[in-house]
Order: sequence, then structure tokens, then C-alpha cells
Amino acid sequence: GPVAAALRELRCNCLQTTQRVQPEMISNLQVFAIGPQCSQVEVVASLKKGTEVCLDPQAPFLKKIIQKILDGYFENKDI
Amino acid sequence: GPVAAALRELRCNCLQTTQRVQPEMISNLQVFAIGPQCSQVEVVASLKKGTEVCLDPQAPFLKKIIQKILDGYFENKDI
Repeated sequence: GPVAAALRELRCNCLQTTQRVQPEMISNLQVFAIGPQCSQVEVVASLKKGTEVCLDPQAPFLKKIIQKILDGYFENKDI
Repeated sequence: GPVAAALRELRCNCLQTTQRVQPEMISNLQVFAIGPQCSQVEVVASLKKGTEVCLDPQAPFLKKIIQKILDGYFENKDI
């Protein structure tokens, strides 16, 4: 579920990850490096409907999702 | 410079991009898909010192940075 931005500084964001995200529904993808707030890498996808999901940093599909977003792949669907 | 989270919903984040970021200084990398708020893909790196910089989504070094963060490459330096 949604995580308050203020809390992001203090703890891990993700209790569990999902593999059931539709890439074209992602509005914003955040990659959190390991740091004082959390001892594991975390990937949080904000969805266009307003919710957030956590993704497995090592999931093979993640690279493809990131590349598609970087390439503006979903441009026509988004505007 | 820092951009208020509230403004992220309303407009583009990046006026210019930089290539002079130290990967190990990144605490959080955000990839914004094209959407109503902005007609171009944007990549915002939050640095451990508290500032933010925008990166070129098509810069070759960006993929390497993302992969290193995903792999927890900077773990030993971060904790």
C-alpha cells in the first residue's frame, strides 16, 4: 500500500514483493540503494491508479520494465 | 535542486541533466514514465548528501548505475 514519504527515511519500504504488475500502469519507479534505513535493495513502483507495489530487485522482468520506461515505450498509452 | 514531492504530480522535474554523479552517492533513483505531468521520461537521483540531480534517461552509464544499485553493489560502502 501507499507509504508516506516521511517514513522512507526511517525504515524499509517493502514487506513483500509482487510479480503481477502491468508495466504500462507504472507512473514512477523508485530504486532504493542499501543504506542506513534498510539492509536490502528495494524497488517501489507507483501505479497510475495511485497505489504502490514492491518489486523484486533481482526479478528478470524488472530490467525490461526499467528499459521500457527509460525508452518512453509507453508514451502513446500514457498521454 | 530538491523538488517538493507535491510538485511531482504537476509538472516535469528536470530542467537539465548532469553526467557528473558518483554512483555510490545515490541513495534513491526515481524513473518517471511519460505521463500527463511531463512529456518526457525523467530520471531523478537523490544523493546521500540530500540533494537531487537529474540524469539523462538515454545515457549509457545510467544502465550500469541502475544495475549496480539493484545488485547491492554499494552495500559495503553504504552501511
